[in-house]
Amino acid sequence: MNRINNFNPGPAALPLEVLEQAQKEFANYRELGMSVMEMSHRSKEVERLGEETVQLLAELLELPAEYRVLFMGGGASMQFALVPLNFLKPGKVGHYILSGSFSEKAYLEAQTIGKAAILASSKDNGWRKLPVIDEPLGTDSAFVHMTTNNTIEGSQFRSLPDTGKVPLIGDMTSDMMSRKIDFTRFSMFYAAAQKNLGPAGVTVAVIHEELLKECAEHIPTIFNYNTYVQHQSLYNTPPVFSIYLMKLVLEWTERQGGITQLEKQNSEKAKLLYDVIDASGGYYKGIVEKPFRSMMNITWRMLDEELEKRFVQEAVINGFEGLGGHRSVGGLRASAYNAVPVPACKELADFMADFQQRNG
Amino acid sequence: MNRINNFNPGPAALPLEVLEQAQKEFANYRELGMSVMEMSHRSKEVERLGEETVQLLAELLELPAEYRVLFMGGGASMQFALVPLNFLKPGKVGHYILSGSFSEKAYLEAQTIGKAAILASSKDNGWRKLPVIDEPLGTDSAFVHMTTNNTIEGSQFRSLPDTGKVPLIGDMTSDMMSRKIDFTRFSMFYAAAQKNLGPAGVTVAVIHEELLKECAEHIPTIFNYNTYVQHQSLYNTPPVFSIYLMKLVLEWTERQGGITQLEKQNSEKAKLLYDVIDASGGYYKGIVEKPFRSMMNITWRMLDEELEKRFVQEAVINGFEGLGGHRSVGGLRASAYNAVPVPACKELADFMADFQQRNG
Repeated sequence: MNRINNFNPGPAALPLEVLEQAQKEFANYRELGMSVMEMSHRSKEVERLGEETVQLLAELLELPAEYRVLFMGGGASMQFALVPLNFLKPGKVGHYILSGSFSEKAYLEAQTIGKAAILASSKDNGWRKLPVIDEPLGTDSAFVHMTTNNTIEGSQFRSLPDTGKVPLIGDMTSDMMSRKIDFTRFSMFYAAAQKNLGPAGVTVAVIHEELLKECAEHIPTIFNYNTYVQHQSLYNTPPVFSIYLMKLVLEWTERQGGITQLEKQNSEKAKLLYDVIDASGGYYKGIVEKPFRSMMNITWRMLDEELEKRFVQEAVINGFEGLGGHRSVGGLRASAYNAVPVPACKELADFMADFQQRNG
Repeated sequence: MNRINNFNPGPAALPLEVLEQAQKEFANYRELGMSVMEMSHRSKEVERLGEETVQLLAELLELPAEYRVLFMGGGASMQFALVPLNFLKPGKVGHYILSGSFSEKAYLEAQTIGKAAILASSKDNGWRKLPVIDEPLGTDSAFVHMTTNNTIEGSQFRSLPDTGKVPLIGDMTSDMMSRKIDFTRFSMFYAAAQKNLGPAGVTVAVIHEELLKECAEHIPTIFNYNTYVQHQSLYNTPPVFSIYLMKLVLEWTERQGGITQLEKQNSEKAKLLYDVIDASGGYYKGIVEKPFRSMMNITWRMLDEELEKRFVQEAVINGFEGLGGHRSVGGLRASAYNAVPVPACKELADFMADFQQRNG
């Protein structure tokens, strides 16, 4: 099989080992005579699958016991609505840190539900920086929402803001499981699976039990986080196959040496690409200022759109997929999530250097 | 491979042909060097996949052009909230026909959002009948919601109620694509995939363009049906793999001769089982009164729970899966969705007759 070098921003590369394992038992899960997709979500096997996935995730993240791990459908955009629905009570304000398009989307969605305010923003800087929080939080603050890694722009928070007693809620869709971070700083964090955790179709929400006490009571049952807690994410039929694949990805993560080892690799992978950018004498121009660069999404521009287009076309011919920047910002982007191997980044770095030599 | 006779109520049996096809191209979709799960949802391939799935579904259902087909995450329980959120305006009433547990769940969820009323109910009959609508609808009615097939109880509406100018909304989760029905009677119908359409993780919502004009404006973007219409269900990352498998299931459906042919088979399958029940002299007691019996979910009781338990145990040993009734009602249930082959039902009928002979 001629496997491509996959730099897609999400849905993204999955570990080949995982794909091959799932393929092998695709029509006959554990010799039970049916696919895992054909099994009742109330069966012992699927219940155990869910429990084991929760446990593995908690171990890999080193989560204290006070956190609940939930599996939900609908993606991160659904969480943009569910967070304020559950936690933004009348008279309170949801504070949003704006560091890129998705954080702004979360803020705009919150406004359809209650009072939302911008705590800090780097929009005026074209998202090339990360915003600094210099305002103290009032007692009216329900929560602070942030996006830890900005997939589209290619920036990433190295440290988390101090929000005192105000719950910090993080959208970690594009960097959960890619680096060590003090998760206990969060009252809640969540991630749609399709970057570092598995295929699209399932979202992980991790919520501290203290915050769960604050869930609004008079909202629809299916929107209430406590419904998922009380039913171990089995209130209704969960996306079983996506959870199954997540479990395989987490087992693979463990075999790689867990987050510590993957973070080292991710750092190495990103460095390979940023080094080419920085050594190119301005031929490749990083979009984000150096201190704020993401290890997951490496973004850059070139002289003009014509050249960028040619770069993408030649890259495709050479077996590199997904390098076009998001349609809202243009340019180039290489997404190097956990499952993207080091050699793929090395090959891309070489291609970039070679492309410059030929077209410089 | 020792394939089981799968009578699971959902997630349920999928066509073996579909599983084998998906297995074959699981790690290398159309020789593109990656899995379909690793492709961008903005890629031409995935966009085309979505378009083709919509088209195939519309053709099989013979939908007029005025209907929009949407793919959403979250299951039917999510629709229980989204329907009133979108269509239950202040001053209006959402009318619910209660014919089983899920229809009641939809009604209870609507009450968290607006004014909901019971139009007709067969709860007092232990759901053994289907309710008759004898009240005329007032001008304050926003919609009438019904469940066309009651998965847990095993009843099914043969005809649709006349709601005049009031939009009829149908939860068809457990019988869409299993029988011919005049879909134009609905302003909207929806189905979570995991019965007749594919694996869990995606829900199909079909909405008439006239009803779409009525969507509430000041609700979160991700809850608004028009968001999905305007973005061809690509506003956010959809559950790509579930849609891909749905497409394979729909292609299989077409190869079987479409709904007409499958309905014949479904009728034959259900008859095999009901015939054993009716010929058993009360040994097997159908739960639902004859005129209301479902072709999809065949339910019955036996003398006592002890015997029912023994039946399930012996059935498992003989290769029959999923025959225990829903935990809320007990008894036995055989779910014979499209992908359950006729011979599986024949074998189950034989097993039932044999079991009676040995334990009568």
